[in-house]
Amino acid sequence: MSAALAAPSSTDAPVLLRHDADGVATLTLNRPQARNALSMALMTALQDALDAIREDPAVRVVILRGAGPAFCAGHDLKEMRADPSRAATEAVFRTCARLMLSLTRLPQPVIAQVHGIATAAGCQLVATCDLALCAEEARFATPGVQIGLFCSTPMVALSRAVSRKAALEMLLVGEPVGAQEALRIGLVNRVVASAELDGAVNAMAQTIAGKARRVLAIGKEAFGRQIEMGLEEAYGYTAEIMTRNMMMADAQEGIDAFLTKRSPRWEP
Amino acid sequence: MSAALAAPSSTDAPVLLRHDADGVATLTLNRPQARNALSMALMTALQDALDAIREDPAVRVVILRGAGPAFCAGHDLKEMRADPSRAATEAVFRTCARLMLSLTRLPQPVIAQVHGIATAAGCQLVATCDLALCAEEARFATPGVQIGLFCSTPMVALSRAVSRKAALEMLLVGEPVGAQEALRIGLVNRVVASAELDGAVNAMAQTIAGKARRVLAIGKEAFGRQIEMGLEEAYGYTAEIMTRNMMMADAQEGIDAFLTKRSPRWEP
Amino acid sequence: MSAALAAPSSTDAPVLLRHDADGVATLTLNRPQARNALSMALMTALQDALDAIREDPAVRVVILRGAGPAFCAGHDLKEMRADPSRAATEAVFRTCARLMLSLTRLPQPVIAQVHGIATAAGCQLVATCDLALCAEEARFATPGVQIGLFCSTPMVALSRAVSRKAALEMLLVGEPVGAQEALRIGLVNRVVASAELDGAVNAMAQTIAGKARRVLAIGKEAFGRQIEMGLEEAYGYTAEIMTRNMMMADAQEGIDAFLTKRSPRWEP
Repeated sequence: MSAALAAPSSTDAPVLLRHDADGVATLTLNRPQARNALSMALMTALQDALDAIREDPAVRVVILRGAGPAFCAGHDLKEMRADPSRAATEAVFRTCARLMLSLTRLPQPVIAQVHGIATAAGCQLVATCDLALCAEEARFATPGVQIGLFCSTPMVALSRAVSRKAALEMLLVGEPVGAQEALRIGLVNRVVASAELDGAVNAMAQTIAGKARRVLAIGKEAFGRQIEMGLEEAYGYTAEIMTRNMMMADAQEGIDAFLTKRSPRWEP
Repeated sequence: MSAALAAPSSTDAPVLLRHDADGVATLTLNRPQARNALSMALMTALQDALDAIREDPAVRVVILRGAGPAFCAGHDLKEMRADPSRAATEAVFRTCARLMLSLTRLPQPVIAQVHGIATAAGCQLVATCDLALCAEEARFATPGVQIGLFCSTPMVALSRAVSRKAALEMLLVGEPVGAQEALRIGLVNRVVASAELDGAVNAMAQTIAGKARRVLAIGKEAFGRQIEMGLEEAYGYTAEIMTRNMMMADAQEGIDAFLTKRSPRWEP
Repeated sequence: MSAALAAPSSTDAPVLLRHDADGVATLTLNRPQARNALSMALMTALQDALDAIREDPAVRVVILRGAGPAFCAGHDLKEMRADPSRAATEAVFRTCARLMLSLTRLPQPVIAQVHGIATAAGCQLVATCDLALCAEEARFATPGVQIGLFCSTPMVALSRAVSRKAALEMLLVGEPVGAQEALRIGLVNRVVASAELDGAVNAMAQTIAGKARRVLAIGKEAFGRQIEMGLEEAYGYTAEIMTRNMMMADAQEGIDAFLTKRSPRWEP
């Protein structure tokens, strides 16, 4: 798969590729010549893919990656300039916002695999994914301020992933942040050598794919809900969630397997 | 004290030990053979101890530690399996949530002293304590996903202590995090050599015990309240808190002592 | 300018200096013999300066620094002791809270240039500024607990800038944090050698001053608003903000300049 993706896509190539194996759905942004800029077609394809994956019990975890040298360079400015009407502009940002919410609300965990640049809405994708691994060569930026278009929607994800001063520096100064700095500020979980990125992401994906599907879904949804609550409300909510989780067959099986030192067999 | 605690407890040993000295109450989880798992008996004993300490003006600061090789391995799964009814299960998680809220709302600061593993609700204890020091050997995990029981209540404390991606990795992957990584992500304040942990924790406890009791209580309560407010509301609230604090005898005494370069004598 | 500021100010010297050049307004706290303590006169002068800068289109970015050895040592305790009435005390904390809100709401980004100690409300200034650069010699503390006056208002800014355990350690223990530790916990963006601090701050200020004024203002305001919203509300709000931004002349110019590889010319 990697070889085919590395080659430049023809004009007929799909803008998004999906490859499923062993419970892992890998989504590859496939506009390498446009540094995987998020055209309406690509955002729509990604939204459709997430809508399908949401209902697909065979998918336990999602990997999001990019074909060619870049991870994702943000919105497609040429396309936006071609129709600068308010309606078209609003459609782009509303579509993007819905896409990011869909990633957060997807029952399956999503891992960003970042091998190159991730800028503007591309950086937002990284910040939005539940987990992110990157190569030493990866670079991250919210450079909208350079072109008079502040990265206000990327800011939503970025400012929830990293500290305020780190987010504000990226947003106000607009300069790129390297892989180690991205790790330091919490934008990525791990940095590995470029040659080891595929392996590291796949290993993490496989580990997660080995968990119970429904339990991952419960946990991911609860994470997003409780983080927006006050402490007391969050405890009331999660105590109920854990009680329900404990009543599920997966928890009965998991605890029994643990106490008797055998491997669990999850519900499909 | 340490010697007695290191020995395996007999079946008659109390599940929680309390030792007071110099304004510091040290609470020791004392189920070493069960890696200090939070049985209902232990959670109840800990709740009772906190309820007593709350009203005890002689206690300025609390240390929470564990006897034996582990800090705390979370809930007592064997006990929970013995009565798997919804009522019993719900009682466990409600009791635990109340306990964590009580730690946060205790007027006295609480320091976690983590010498070994802190997993699931044990990791939640560390995340919940105001401060945490650990040995190089300490390990932290929210591994519920391994047994089909997502660590949804530990998540409440964890996701408020560390960044989102760090929290999600611990929750979704379930693997242990070492001491230095716990420091890097903000789960603990400091890592010291195992042999120096007692000393470092006691030194920090003594420093805090030397402060004015009422002033610590005002500050800790205000921290928990203002962190859940918007910026403007938080400033309105804390400006009033500081005004009241300034009217107290402890502030008058403290400022006078500072300006005249002598030691303050706090209200009892 | 630096030479004049380094000398002790006479009693007639203004408590705050403002120097404008190349779109950068530099505000210098100028009570060096009092370690730039925030007397009512200094807070009022700073509020007036911010109110003027807010309406001044020639100012693109603000630098906040201190004359003499300290950045800022917090409130003026001697002044507060001179009138310990509740009314006077309340006025100090309300004035300070309003000042901090004004820094956050100023349309122009504010960079703290921290060359020495920044304690109590001085540390709050650093936490409140959008960005902060410091020298290796800088020290940060919220030591109110030492004098019976918990740093409850500094806590508002500090607990939003750094992790909870890092904030609680500074607040409950009260001891100073060095420059590298301040960087680690996210209180400052960068640490440089003392001799390079002026240059590093000016370079960052010039970079920001080269951006479009209105775009910086939109972005900074949106940052403060969206950070207090839930995720869905934040996306709805910022998608609208980005649409409006895209309709502005600065965005049209910036994108056109970017696509045709020339320098943009912003609206004045």
